[in-house]
Amino acid sequence: MAPVNPQSPNPTEGGSEDSPDLPGFADVQMAAVRIAGKALRTPIVENPALNERVGGRVLIKPECLQRTGSFKFRGAFNRISQLGADAREGGVVAYSSGNHAQGVAAAAQLKEFPAVIVMPEDTPKIKVSNTAGYGAEVVQYDRASEDRKAIAQDLAAKRGAVIVPPYDDANIIAGQGTAGLEFAQDLGARGVTPDAVLVPAGGGGLLAGVSLAFEGVFPKTEIYSVEPRGFDDHARSLKSGRRRKNKHATGSVCDALLAPQPGELTFAINQPRATGGLAVSDEEVRAAVAFAFRTLKLVVEPGGAVCLAAVLAGKIDCRDRDIAIVLSGGNVDPGLFSEIVNAH
Amino acid sequence: MAPVNPQSPNPTEGGSEDSPDLPGFADVQMAAVRIAGKALRTPIVENPALNERVGGRVLIKPECLQRTGSFKFRGAFNRISQLGADAREGGVVAYSSGNHAQGVAAAAQLKEFPAVIVMPEDTPKIKVSNTAGYGAEVVQYDRASEDRKAIAQDLAAKRGAVIVPPYDDANIIAGQGTAGLEFAQDLGARGVTPDAVLVPAGGGGLLAGVSLAFEGVFPKTEIYSVEPRGFDDHARSLKSGRRRKNKHATGSVCDALLAPQPGELTFAINQPRATGGLAVSDEEVRAAVAFAFRTLKLVVEPGGAVCLAAVLAGKIDCRDRDIAIVLSGGNVDPGLFSEIVNAH
Repeated sequence: MAPVNPQSPNPTEGGSEDSPDLPGFADVQMAAVRIAGKALRTPIVENPALNERVGGRVLIKPECLQRTGSFKFRGAFNRISQLGADAREGGVVAYSSGNHAQGVAAAAQLKEFPAVIVMPEDTPKIKVSNTAGYGAEVVQYDRASEDRKAIAQDLAAKRGAVIVPPYDDANIIAGQGTAGLEFAQDLGARGVTPDAVLVPAGGGGLLAGVSLAFEGVFPKTEIYSVEPRGFDDHARSLKSGRRRKNKHATGSVCDALLAPQPGELTFAINQPRATGGLAVSDEEVRAAVAFAFRTLKLVVEPGGAVCLAAVLAGKIDCRDRDIAIVLSGGNVDPGLFSEIVNAH
Repeated sequence: MAPVNPQSPNPTEGGSEDSPDLPGFADVQMAAVRIAGKALRTPIVENPALNERVGGRVLIKPECLQRTGSFKFRGAFNRISQLGADAREGGVVAYSSGNHAQGVAAAAQLKEFPAVIVMPEDTPKIKVSNTAGYGAEVVQYDRASEDRKAIAQDLAAKRGAVIVPPYDDANIIAGQGTAGLEFAQDLGARGVTPDAVLVPAGGGGLLAGVSLAFEGVFPKTEIYSVEPRGFDDHARSLKSGRRRKNKHATGSVCDALLAPQPGELTFAINQPRATGGLAVSDEEVRAAVAFAFRTLKLVVEPGGAVCLAAVLAGKIDCRDRDIAIVLSGGNVDPGLFSEIVNAH
């Protein structure tokens, strides 16, 4: 495992994929400068009915309001905006269950690079059509039988394209961290020092970025990953101190959080910083999506709602505490969304 | 018509219902002090996809995120928080198609006054159950055959209760104006002087409050009412200079915007300040609700979406301009919402 060194120099110089260097707080700060005016500074929202229900204060960072409907644009833009002119012909390739796809497609479009996205066949339609809508070429594969990374590497080699990985990359992590930095800054401006921050975890890129940002601003705040039950690789990895795999590749309503295990770089950052991991059932997630519709008036996709689910289901003590949560995305098909809000 | 006098003294002293005095900018500022910490300071949100589509900048005040799911809590709390202890036994009575009902119920609950709300039988279920959920007693009536005002006056007389009218009241108007004041302040903080502000209009209370606030902060910004086609009493009244009635009492998907005509006080404020009125079809409203779901990731009810509909349907020129719009509420039944988002 690479040593934790938040003061490491900008890892982008040598290309983060070839370097064991981990990003630090300064990299998150630099990413914030790069994405300014491109990514939205999403607000903090709060809901009195939610606060009353949990007996504490829940401060929400709704990244569903972000450009492309999830935080993923932040990392993608931070990565792609640093590519040189020599990458313009080959462009970029990414593999993604959907939100990273849209983030990369939108960032590539803004920076005028061609983009090819490798997406599983069971991806929600809204994510596929949005990705194509940002001008990217979409290549679909079977999640159960094919290896998305191999397909992407093959495409990249053929086209001379740069792979923009979904999480295990210093610039992606630093970019996602800008959500945490804004959150921490805006909490501070409200005079709130949160007792804990809850972050959805798939590959752990957002968790790593938020961990770096909160360590820089609120070093005493507890940091928790939140995952679907049965896909709690972060919870188990954080507990055991080494990276654990999920048993299954599919089988949760949270399509955005099905990465097989924590990333290497992300886990090196998260392991010493995160307090632990929480897990929520699909039913708890569905109830949270419905609560967000009915009470918060936010459209949150299942994977984006796990932290709200954890709060509503009492997985963390909120009583008389200030709990910061990230709602990471809102790209959900109308059909599934309707089914959920009509059933609750 | 009462003379326009923005410098009039605080009309609350003598009881606004008995006084011809109109509220002014100072009343909005005082209301902002009263509601602080009770109503949410809703953020400004912006969406790059929307901006690109209209070729300009659309700045959104999402009052669907407000306590009770609409701006109505602002006026209700401003009014009810000024009631004396002598009103505690009789409590308050309100008549409302739904959002004012919830605002009054929640404000009364916070201030520990009993509340009775008179609501039409065709009110969306979510509004009825939410109102009851805030501890209010709900009395339903037939919108086509019964007079809600008469029912409310009768109830108030019997119980010794104070009527909290939906819009034609100086304190209600000043309270709704706090949405406009926050909007103007936060636009200013971003360095934006909007070319126009668009406000949904039913009885015109929000429009009047926003007009007072914008006059105080951005006197050159154009102010437009937005209404459902066929219920464009403000558009026609503003054009003709006197209050016009709608032909029908029902028949639009925008249940929140079906007041029969502009209020007397609200029109006295709006007439000299508003530039004009826009109207949108139900189909344009439905498309806007679906756009808010798919792209903005906000849950907006039909009546709350009319300004977005106006922008998307090209009812106002947005090209290279900064257009401020209010999304006034998000209380929509899951069934109707599902139907709309699945059809677009």
